[in-house]
Amino acid sequence: MLRGLVSVVPAEDITAVVNTGDDIVLHGLNISPDLDTVTYTLAAAIDPVQGWGLEGETWNAMAALDRFGGQTWFRLGDRDLATHLYRTQRLSEGAGLDEVTGEIVGAWGLGLCVLPMTNDRVETRVTLADDGAEIGFQEYFVGRGHAVPVRSVRFCGVEQARPAPGVLDAIATADRIVVCPSNPIVSIGPVLAVPGILDAIVTRRDDVVAVSPIIAGAALKGPADRMLVELGHEPSAVGVARLYAPFASTLVIDVADAALADQVAAEGIRPVVVPTIMRDAETSAALARAVLAG
Amino acid sequence: MLRGLVSVVPAEDITAVVNTGDDIVLHGLNISPDLDTVTYTLAAAIDPVQGWGLEGETWNAMAALDRFGGQTWFRLGDRDLATHLYRTQRLSEGAGLDEVTGEIVGAWGLGLCVLPMTNDRVETRVTLADDGAEIGFQEYFVGRGHAVPVRSVRFCGVEQARPAPGVLDAIATADRIVVCPSNPIVSIGPVLAVPGILDAIVTRRDDVVAVSPIIAGAALKGPADRMLVELGHEPSAVGVARLYAPFASTLVIDVADAALADQVAAEGIRPVVVPTIMRDAETSAALARAVLAG
Repeated sequence: MLRGLVSVVPAEDITAVVNTGDDIVLHGLNISPDLDTVTYTLAAAIDPVQGWGLEGETWNAMAALDRFGGQTWFRLGDRDLATHLYRTQRLSEGAGLDEVTGEIVGAWGLGLCVLPMTNDRVETRVTLADDGAEIGFQEYFVGRGHAVPVRSVRFCGVEQARPAPGVLDAIATADRIVVCPSNPIVSIGPVLAVPGILDAIVTRRDDVVAVSPIIAGAALKGPADRMLVELGHEPSAVGVARLYAPFASTLVIDVADAALADQVAAEGIRPVVVPTIMRDAETSAALARAVLAG
Repeated sequence: MLRGLVSVVPAEDITAVVNTGDDIVLHGLNISPDLDTVTYTLAAAIDPVQGWGLEGETWNAMAALDRFGGQTWFRLGDRDLATHLYRTQRLSEGAGLDEVTGEIVGAWGLGLCVLPMTNDRVETRVTLADDGAEIGFQEYFVGRGHAVPVRSVRFCGVEQARPAPGVLDAIATADRIVVCPSNPIVSIGPVLAVPGILDAIVTRRDDVVAVSPIIAGAALKGPADRMLVELGHEPSAVGVARLYAPFASTLVIDVADAALADQVAAEGIRPVVVPTIMRDAETSAALARAVLAG
């Protein structure tokens, strides 16, 4: 979605506020998967097959870590490791995550502003339906391949978290606020849970456009559809409308869900029906234009 | 020296007590250069040209870190990084450095016991003669290429440090205690400065054999000769004898220093004159035999 936006709007005009609830400390390193995926994607450096990590990556550190029986379930490529080494060193020197993120994004030559939702530690934790065990998000998502049903989700530490510097200002001054088609529970949810952010967005409701991540009852990738069901929501554009109507005035839904437009409208959010599957630069740009047009 | 010893004695009979004063935390990783160099050397995996790091190493993480202007002065190869990732993760889980070191040494298939001098944090710090600035050991050794004169050296935190589990027992029960030909100030010095270790060695003085790292007035590598001068010691086998006589009964000196044997003896330590330059497996084994014969 961001790739589409930067193709139709000057990058300098865009601020991306990114979920950090799935950050993890592993091997002593501060790893921010969502921030890095945004950065690598916009830098056209991401591995297009995996959808994470760097294209043409080498895996010598992980292979060597296997010798020790180390934790290699969370794969970190050699060049990707450098991002975490840099972030960890800078944080240990007292820099804020927003500052470090700006440095990393700048080093990749990107013009947009990428902000973590908060500089404080928030940890998305997932309670499994089967045995009631609570595990970290990455252990659920990567370790278990999100193949286990979820009973509940919480964002540990979020009550004490403050929005990162610049987040509230970006929301207050944006021409348009776009809620990208991502998992409503564990990707959008943590951002909205940081005290102050939801209120700021509600204030701007008329200018908030969300894009449904659910198309014809399913998520294009990831566990969003299953997770919605498991947590008692409807896995459809209507279910998303119900979740987003309090803070968004417009919901972009896919042409495959055109028949749901009236039901979406009944939730109090204006439906816009366009193709939302971003197959290439062309379709991404078209969706971005539709979103900005509102 | 250890390579020679393991070639003439069963590895299972050897305990190596290793300096950790030059350990460094960088990028959030716990790096123990001396422990790793011992391990990599005995595993025949060390880069023979550099004398540190792994042979056939790749440097993709460091190259990527350069993009961010990160700290790349302390070079960490991709496979070497795995050692630090593993160590840091295990320490963060509450394991002691001795335990983690045992796991790493075991993973390399080595039969000897390698112990850190202490599990506690001790930091060798160097005050420069020129401007009186105090810097960490690695900044002196690697960052400045040990090319600056030193005014003083201290082992920050050593007063509170305790010998790692097994160290005092190894000293008390060893048939022979070998002080390897290493820098007396910054490699042997920190080990002896851990409260309890010097006393334990003094008790075993009759069985302590040291090998002079100074041959014909010079160190084979590193700054030991200059450092001895800078700190007011004589850069010769006699100077080493003076430093080691309190706890060692025998000093092995090189044939090049045969003429100094009487002066060494006058310091109260018995000289043994043999070739001490370890050019290959053969000469290392010969020196090891001489050391064990005492």
